[in-house]
Amino acid sequence: MKAQVTVTLKRGVLDPQGQAIEGALKSLNFNSVGSVRQGKVFDIELDESDPVQARNRLNEMCEKLLANTVIEDYTVTLSE
Amino acid sequence: MKAQVTVTLKRGVLDPQGQAIEGALKSLNFNSVGSVRQGKVFDIELDESDPVQARNRLNEMCEKLLANTVIEDYTVTLSE
Repeated sequence: MKAQVTVTLKRGVLDPQGQAIEGALKSLNFNSVGSVRQGKVFDIELDESDPVQARNRLNEMCEKLLANTVIEDYTVTLSE
Repeated sequence: MKAQVTVTLKRGVLDPQGQAIEGALKSLNFNSVGSVRQGKVFDIELDESDPVQARNRLNEMCEKLLANTVIEDYTVTLSE
């Protein structure tokens, strides 16, 4: 089973990297750009056939390693 | 209009960061983990009402700044 985990900064947490990208896009004449926030994505292959079990394991991985839940949110998407 | 751009390494490109995360997950007893690949995600707010136009602009941003198309793939998802 394949999963995609997306980790993004919580609303209100300062994102200097995102701001830098926003500035860079504007300097390239992409004037319609509003805000930009950067996050991380993990493509994980799991040897697990039960989707419920897989989701539980992935949430656990996020809590323990992949996300800093003080400042970050995560979403888990399963495919196949 | 909000958009999410996901940038991931192409198949076959070495991903040491992903391998490190894979090792870390295994050392935390997540033994069902197969491969892990890490990528980037950009949440972009666009002042654009036409979805076709928005998608074109976002593709252009990816080609010019957000992705290194030699080694990375990107996908654009629009919402609202």
